[in-house]
Amino acid sequence: MKSDSFPYPLQRIGIIGGGQLGKMTAQVAKRMGFYVTVLDRSANCPSAHVADALIVGDLYDGEKLRAIAEVSDVLTYEIEHIDTATLKALFAEGKKIYPAPRVLEIIQDKLKQKQVLDQAGVPVPRYQQVDNLNNEYLQQVTFPIVQKARTGGYDGKGVAILKSMADVDKILPVPSMVEEYIPFSKEIAVMVARNRQHEVVCYPVVEMVFDERTNICDIVAVPARIDPAMSERAQQIAIKAIEALDGVGVFGVEMFLTNNDEILVNEIAPRPHNSGHYTIEASVTSQFEQLVRIICNLPLGASKLLSPAAMWNLLGEEGYQGTPVIEGLGSALSVQGLSFHLYGKDTTQPFRKMGHVTIIDDSVAAALDKVEQVKTMLKIKA
Amino acid sequence: MKSDSFPYPLQRIGIIGGGQLGKMTAQVAKRMGFYVTVLDRSANCPSAHVADALIVGDLYDGEKLRAIAEVSDVLTYEIEHIDTATLKALFAEGKKIYPAPRVLEIIQDKLKQKQVLDQAGVPVPRYQQVDNLNNEYLQQVTFPIVQKARTGGYDGKGVAILKSMADVDKILPVPSMVEEYIPFSKEIAVMVARNRQHEVVCYPVVEMVFDERTNICDIVAVPARIDPAMSERAQQIAIKAIEALDGVGVFGVEMFLTNNDEILVNEIAPRPHNSGHYTIEASVTSQFEQLVRIICNLPLGASKLLSPAAMWNLLGEEGYQGTPVIEGLGSALSVQGLSFHLYGKDTTQPFRKMGHVTIIDDSVAAALDKVEQVKTMLKIKA
Repeated sequence: MKSDSFPYPLQRIGIIGGGQLGKMTAQVAKRMGFYVTVLDRSANCPSAHVADALIVGDLYDGEKLRAIAEVSDVLTYEIEHIDTATLKALFAEGKKIYPAPRVLEIIQDKLKQKQVLDQAGVPVPRYQQVDNLNNEYLQQVTFPIVQKARTGGYDGKGVAILKSMADVDKILPVPSMVEEYIPFSKEIAVMVARNRQHEVVCYPVVEMVFDERTNICDIVAVPARIDPAMSERAQQIAIKAIEALDGVGVFGVEMFLTNNDEILVNEIAPRPHNSGHYTIEASVTSQFEQLVRIICNLPLGASKLLSPAAMWNLLGEEGYQGTPVIEGLGSALSVQGLSFHLYGKDTTQPFRKMGHVTIIDDSVAAALDKVEQVKTMLKIKA
Repeated sequence: MKSDSFPYPLQRIGIIGGGQLGKMTAQVAKRMGFYVTVLDRSANCPSAHVADALIVGDLYDGEKLRAIAEVSDVLTYEIEHIDTATLKALFAEGKKIYPAPRVLEIIQDKLKQKQVLDQAGVPVPRYQQVDNLNNEYLQQVTFPIVQKARTGGYDGKGVAILKSMADVDKILPVPSMVEEYIPFSKEIAVMVARNRQHEVVCYPVVEMVFDERTNICDIVAVPARIDPAMSERAQQIAIKAIEALDGVGVFGVEMFLTNNDEILVNEIAPRPHNSGHYTIEASVTSQFEQLVRIICNLPLGASKLLSPAAMWNLLGEEGYQGTPVIEGLGSALSVQGLSFHLYGKDTTQPFRKMGHVTIIDDSVAAALDKVEQVKTMLKIKA
């Protein structure tokens, strides 16, 4: 058989984690003819009924990781919180895993992540390792500072902004990294896709708006309304960051655009990222398809933007818990250019990511106006 | 609960038929948070692992049709060859079925279909009912003529083109309809989406190229390279045809553009159609999402074209049968703007529809050039 021939099913893909990112990856893989197995703790996870098989188990359970490896030609993951020891052992045994467990391990530790970037000359905020953040330490800093737990954080959790000595009770009692607080004009992000041959495709710069109550990304707009030269610099920095990690896969690179027109890398996700959801509707190749292509050693797709777009995360409404009720769906779907994604989580909680909408329109401003309209209509209650 | 509120899962959709059209409909329904059950004869059908549940059974088995109705709030179908008697009984009992069984019944009989259109003033080729096409009948016609079996045809099957008395052995020995042979400059098609409130959204006119060996649609290009006034007339005729049927759902309307600049309706499909596959990548709302919106009584989406596109059907290569081997996949995926769909059929046969590719580009001509390139690379063998 020729090297460019694939028997059906093309390849067996294992996705570690069955949340919304796993679901969207599985859906594109099934469209393309792959066999997909998902590992997740819950039999009712979003990926449960869109893939060929589901293994129910904890992502820190080495036996379950071995079970999904067993039935898959290649593994990837949709979440950082996994037992890397087993992944590294599987990798050493020759299992194909993208991004490599070594990259995941670096990213899991925010301090190591920053050090690797810093040493490669990627601009980052000033940072310091602080194993035990205490009163004494606070007495010698210039406020505000940002404390980040080295491991285990997500969606704004594991981060404390300390503005004065009065914030002493906000201190996270864990090994951490302290960063200067960056007064930024915008938070921006770039998706970078890098394949096994180290070819790179870079998506346009997006701007992110965060929910102030929770520090969860609320709205993503693309293309970012920034100077084109700045956009290009952001893309170059993002690529440099992924090259510094020698990452193979799809990566979300979050950055600050500072008040002094500096660009500093904040954090990297070694997987499809919330800031790239818009690529499903607005790009030639979505971030999810790009990941499938990369891990199966198929050529990269085009990242060209077909239309300006805005994405809004549908978070569970405050004060509601239980089986979700989607309020205002009909009104929302009457907004032209809107695509609706409901992840299929059977329980809502305040601020839980339950779905998202993407709106494409002739300009970012027009798309953002529609997002504001839709925010008044569409709510996840219970 | 307000009328615009939907508890999760939004609604339970039943799709009768689990081929590629069912698969693509199920994938979008799952994206949007619906619960999807599919009925198909095969446990390994394309829809098998992309939906919540699969009922294995024949589409002419009334008990199985009742079984899927039982677990679904609303029913639709992806194929015309179904037991309409049971569907009509279910409809009479109050089951929501779109398009209505009455419409399916008309369309199943090509003669009835033509009569309904003709009586409503929709332009169609001249036709005649011929219950028993024989030598005697042939002696009084002007060749060529087209014989169509009244029922049971699909993908070019059930159609005979009779060019002279010598073609007497091509006669289909079934109740049929005979049509004048139309010397056409192009075969074109329009997708029409019509909701329960009788609002209509019409997609752009596409042009179709058929494989001469099999009469299966080979390539679809959009927008059709025809006069804009002609395009608009084709859309108006397509809408008139669906209104004549009082159809609710998504319909593919195939037409001839004759050498005399007439537009004549050839055939209608009461479901997503091969000529609308391009809408997944190139339109704001795909034909599959439109169907889901309509049957669940949600507003119609926009049919706006985001990019010119060409779609090529991946048919099983002549001379191969068995487990498919996809040759040239890597080469094909290196073509910028190409999206690959493999339906997941576990056996290939000559000319079986195994998948399709859609290529978006800046012009129809550029997209068609790429299709010609890809045709030399990508083959489904065994």
